[in-house]
Amino acid sequence: MTNKNLIKKTVTLPIAVTMGEPAGIGGELMCLAWASNAQDLPPIVLIDDPLRIEQLGETIKCPVKVIAISKAIEAVEIWPEAIPVIPLSLNKPVIPGILDPSNSSAVIASLDKAIKLTVTGETKGLVTNPIQKSVLYGEKFKDPGHTEYLARATKANVNPVMMLVGPNLRVVPVTIHTSLSNAVKNLCIDDIVHCASLSADSLNRDFGIARPRIVISALNPHAGENGAFGHEEISIIKPAIDIIKAKGINVKGPSAADTLFNPQARQNYDVVICMYHDQALIPIKMLDFHRTVNMTLGLPIVRTSPDHGTALDIAGTGQANPTSFIEAVKLASFISSKRENR
Amino acid sequence: MTNKNLIKKTVTLPIAVTMGEPAGIGGELMCLAWASNAQDLPPIVLIDDPLRIEQLGETIKCPVKVIAISKAIEAVEIWPEAIPVIPLSLNKPVIPGILDPSNSSAVIASLDKAIKLTVTGETKGLVTNPIQKSVLYGEKFKDPGHTEYLARATKANVNPVMMLVGPNLRVVPVTIHTSLSNAVKNLCIDDIVHCASLSADSLNRDFGIARPRIVISALNPHAGENGAFGHEEISIIKPAIDIIKAKGINVKGPSAADTLFNPQARQNYDVVICMYHDQALIPIKMLDFHRTVNMTLGLPIVRTSPDHGTALDIAGTGQANPTSFIEAVKLASFISSKRENR
Repeated sequence: MTNKNLIKKTVTLPIAVTMGEPAGIGGELMCLAWASNAQDLPPIVLIDDPLRIEQLGETIKCPVKVIAISKAIEAVEIWPEAIPVIPLSLNKPVIPGILDPSNSSAVIASLDKAIKLTVTGETKGLVTNPIQKSVLYGEKFKDPGHTEYLARATKANVNPVMMLVGPNLRVVPVTIHTSLSNAVKNLCIDDIVHCASLSADSLNRDFGIARPRIVISALNPHAGENGAFGHEEISIIKPAIDIIKAKGINVKGPSAADTLFNPQARQNYDVVICMYHDQALIPIKMLDFHRTVNMTLGLPIVRTSPDHGTALDIAGTGQANPTSFIEAVKLASFISSKRENR
Repeated sequence: MTNKNLIKKTVTLPIAVTMGEPAGIGGELMCLAWASNAQDLPPIVLIDDPLRIEQLGETIKCPVKVIAISKAIEAVEIWPEAIPVIPLSLNKPVIPGILDPSNSSAVIASLDKAIKLTVTGETKGLVTNPIQKSVLYGEKFKDPGHTEYLARATKANVNPVMMLVGPNLRVVPVTIHTSLSNAVKNLCIDDIVHCASLSADSLNRDFGIARPRIVISALNPHAGENGAFGHEEISIIKPAIDIIKAKGINVKGPSAADTLFNPQARQNYDVVICMYHDQALIPIKMLDFHRTVNMTLGLPIVRTSPDHGTALDIAGTGQANPTSFIEAVKLASFISSKRENR
């Protein structure tokens, strides 16, 4: 066993947290989470500007203690007495709510550092704060979003998939940020099979469910009523289910989406593979608006993020709700412990 | 004032209830509702075979008293001591769960009688039990469903619209029983305006809301993010909202559907106009699975129905849940009283 592995097995490594868009609510989520919940959270190492975080805490009337560190492992000693921060510099002072492309290189540097720490095993998982993609596109950020950037940076060998995890429901949308028209047009057997396979693997490995129960939702009303309201259940979803079954996965469907999310129905599965964004997001945001966490399947590292955006309209006011951020940190820690103990 | 109108104003007229598919759960819903809830319900007159209902009550171990009547008004005296039934004959004995086209003429006769009673003011509203459309198409039933049949039979001068009413949410889907692909393709300004206008009228007249708050949901994820994920918000939904506003209606949108149905968001509107079936049905069935009622807007009469199908698989077992049926009767009575008192 190498020294690094010895450390991994004997002490709790920290979770890396990125800065995200500095004009957004990421920094204050860190302050609010630390002030309200530090004892319940695993050690965190934030990659950000320490002075900015200290001042932000004062601005939002949530004073925090910040200690700059150089190695992630130091966070274990410092937490929860202070927020350990690996420092980086911003090009311009941050005004909450006002985007400034001058700081984009720092946003990316924070992400790159957090990825590196997690890939090399210095941190046990990664929580990304929300970014504002439009302001990053001028920089070296060429991907549609965080997830694709991470896939490239970690040399993932499969396309990553988003699972939304709440206390009462887990959902995986087969398509995400595309028009509903394109979501319908591009629905294909391979993507459904891929999402179901990664979900089954993750539920087993990351959540300790011996034989996960997967449900595939229908695309059309009443699951198409045998082709009367759309053919996709017959031509795409059922063939996908046959392939998933042949892999030995416990799978059911296609199930009409409108009767799939009531309390009784939810007893019968561990995840629903949904055919488009809102089919997944409507139910989970109804049930667990603040407690839903975005988790990426298919990466070689553990990565979660709060399930909301930069919230520029309330940034700097202290009104942001840190619950999803807190749950994201807890989930990253829980999953990395599960993976370590295998 | 004519005699008929005098009666209308001075006694509570009954609600007409149709037989629906006799092999389905309609008959036992009537038995279960009467046995559990007769005191709380307005007088009902059922159009069915009295002996069949009495025997069905015995079969499902929910004995009922049935009295055959010839005029709807007699139901007022009889209810709640017995179920008043205007008799009609079935061609074949009914076997629960087994469809028999021989009885289709009776299904239609029951519907026609109930429509006539309500149009002529002998009953104050109409509750339709679920039908099995496939078995009726051989008969004179040529419409896609109940609603279109009713529109024709009552000479409605606008296209009727379905509103789903639960204790915690009201939704109106702009398109209903069509594939998601067609729902997207056929989305148009006129249909959105029509649904919003009928909803505003109904909320005012039928629910007593002085200035109803209408929200129009988006079609695409994140309401299309200014055209990045679909153009329909810009080219169809916003222009529709402008027209609705110009009619003096209090309307907002297009609102991203995934953040529209949490408890906090629901405080801000009286109805959501949804762009497709599952966008409306997922949230309302999650919140109020058994308490949701289907109400038809745009007819000259009051019509509601339970929001479920014939449930052939459990027909004759007594397992059916009569809650939606009970709520449908209560809502029909509530709305007709509102309309009478204007």
